[in-house]
Amino acid sequence: TEQFRIALLPGDGIGPEIMAVAVAVLEQVGQLCDLKFEFRAALIGGAAIDQTGQPLPPETLETCRQSDAVLLAAIGGYQWDALPRQQRPETGLLGLRAGLELFANLRPARILPQLVDASSLKREVVEGVDIMVVRELTGGIYFGQPKGIFTTETGQQRGVNTMAYSADEIDRIGRVAFETARQRQGRLCSVDKANVLEVSQLWRDRITALASDYPDVELSHLYVDNAAMQLLRWPKQFDTIVTGNLFGDILSDAAAMLTGSIGMLPSASVGASGPGLFEPVHGSAPDIAGQDRANPLAQVLSAALLLRYGLQQSAAADRIERAVSSLLEQGYRTADIAAAGQTALGCRAMGEALQQQ
Amino acid sequence: TEQFRIALLPGDGIGPEIMAVAVAVLEQVGQLCDLKFEFRAALIGGAAIDQTGQPLPPETLETCRQSDAVLLAAIGGYQWDALPRQQRPETGLLGLRAGLELFANLRPARILPQLVDASSLKREVVEGVDIMVVRELTGGIYFGQPKGIFTTETGQQRGVNTMAYSADEIDRIGRVAFETARQRQGRLCSVDKANVLEVSQLWRDRITALASDYPDVELSHLYVDNAAMQLLRWPKQFDTIVTGNLFGDILSDAAAMLTGSIGMLPSASVGASGPGLFEPVHGSAPDIAGQDRANPLAQVLSAALLLRYGLQQSAAADRIERAVSSLLEQGYRTADIAAAGQTALGCRAMGEALQQQ
Ligand SMILES: CC(C)[C@H](C(=O)O)[C@@H](O)C(=O)O
Ligand SMILES: CC(C)[C@H](C(=O)O)[C@@H](O)C(=O)O
Repeated sequence: TEQFRIALLPGDGIGPEIMAVAVAVLEQVGQLCDLKFEFRAALIGGAAIDQTGQPLPPETLETCRQSDAVLLAAIGGYQWDALPRQQRPETGLLGLRAGLELFANLRPARILPQLVDASSLKREVVEGVDIMVVRELTGGIYFGQPKGIFTTETGQQRGVNTMAYSADEIDRIGRVAFETARQRQGRLCSVDKANVLEVSQLWRDRITALASDYPDVELSHLYVDNAAMQLLRWPKQFDTIVTGNLFGDILSDAAAMLTGSIGMLPSASVGASGPGLFEPVHGSAPDIAGQDRANPLAQVLSAALLLRYGLQQSAAADRIERAVSSLLEQGYRTADIAAAGQTALGCRAMGEALQQQ
Repeated sequence: TEQFRIALLPGDGIGPEIMAVAVAVLEQVGQLCDLKFEFRAALIGGAAIDQTGQPLPPETLETCRQSDAVLLAAIGGYQWDALPRQQRPETGLLGLRAGLELFANLRPARILPQLVDASSLKREVVEGVDIMVVRELTGGIYFGQPKGIFTTETGQQRGVNTMAYSADEIDRIGRVAFETARQRQGRLCSVDKANVLEVSQLWRDRITALASDYPDVELSHLYVDNAAMQLLRWPKQFDTIVTGNLFGDILSDAAAMLTGSIGMLPSASVGASGPGLFEPVHGSAPDIAGQDRANPLAQVLSAALLLRYGLQQSAAADRIERAVSSLLEQGYRTADIAAAGQTALGCRAMGEALQQQ
């Protein structure tokens, strides 16, 4: 029996509900695959603010560091929006990414054949879409210095943030992206704004230089405005996309929404060493929290990613992904993905149906 | 007879072809409406680089300043992409925006009933979409200092750009946006990344403060990643959007692409005083340049915007817009918007057909 420590960060809103389903699924698959999981729950986001005054208590970071992988649900809610920046849920998430040095965020946007009609795009445009966005996660304008709101000599307020990348930061995310593309269809599109931004020009130069180490990968470049257009126009042109933190935030969400079912999408954040972080693409959905209406499948699929990439247990990951597929095949749906005429299950019932697969 | 000076900047690629059509249409409408136009052509972009070594020769800026309005076609092409930044076509366009202090860029994305099927989105999702993106155009990360590629103490290269907004800059674009929303459906959505960026926090605070001067406008806020998602999910929720230079670049292009026919979309850039700049949303399309295949209608509709907002000649603008409508009604199409079975006209023929309306 192999044994693993998994840190659980349920967070806010629907987080605890969907986390409960994922943990039950992990327990079950552990028994079937002879894996033992030691779960340790920790506070993050609004839940942590309410109990400790900080969105990322040091114990939480410590628990994560001592684990083999981290499973996060979601953070945030209206009640914490007015707090000063240092005490906001998002600051906790950014601190976790930085603290674990999770520089690579992998966001798949794959249309599931059973859910093609959930998309706002035409069937022929989205059928078969399978995009992986590789987003840099610990640099760029999210962390660049100087930042703040300053008062100028004339007494005026001025808000400032800095978008910066060093050559090394670009190279390490670039390598992850080329490796990822290589394991997919071998096509990598790098997105920047090199026609306007110097930081993008360095980005483009470094990514272009890396390409010679990956002759089997076909590299192209797009400006971010054009990339946003191409994603809507003909998303099937994309295989793997690599971009910086801010552009990745925007484009990975746009790519996710192409599927029409962001309640289904997991993501992975990894560093050079140490535990990876696995979480759904969707947020904490405070409007439906505690009502047993959330879709737990993105959380469950995040647990599958955790098994596959965090713990190298692909057989167990396969089992979960197959179970989700067969569940959908049989017409089980939560409200967010139910078509007209389909009965919607609650979060718990969906979890139970999944465990029957 | 009223008289106006119009600066013409045909630029690169398909620019000269579509500009010729727009000028012919302006001449015609001028006769019909008793307006006299004095056109002065000037160089910009690649064409200017080739002839003068600079993308924005001082004479061009001077010609624009001495005009009542500026009509631009498009700039850029592969042959100038490798030049140093100061000599690139885009730098000329940025210089023109800054030189004329065109801080407000208005980008309508309206689905024309005749072209609903050109969209990659489902008919029920896009039918009736009518969005105006108000983008700040002379600030933010496009112009913020410091910027450049620097060498750090450890000898590493580091690319840097600065996203900065002063309270005044935010207020003046905010006022344009509130005024615009007021003349439309009265709903304004401000887009930022205030959960991460200090510059966005100042943005949100100032826009929120302005709202009390516009009690008839309903103000909402979205984070940019969510805005990108909502644009694809249900674009009809938007009326007027206001945002900074970079987010506006991305979102206005995404909104434009929702229509599926960016060859149809005009835009306007205006300042506090001085001439406004009117140009199509699409680019210079070097791949089809000189082949008489371009769609001239965005350029023609830009001329209509120029009449309406640049010269306060709304009767003349109406005429042009009605002519375009009736042209489409009768099934005339260029290749980019032709559906299966429709005959595609070339650029010149489309211009001639338009003049018959
Ligand atoms: C919550 C927020 C800080 C975060 C981000 O911008 O990175 C989120 O949008 C995401 O994409 O994970
Ligand atoms: C050509 C480029 C500099 C420009 C911009 O980024 O503003 C273009 O994309 C636009 O939107 O007008």
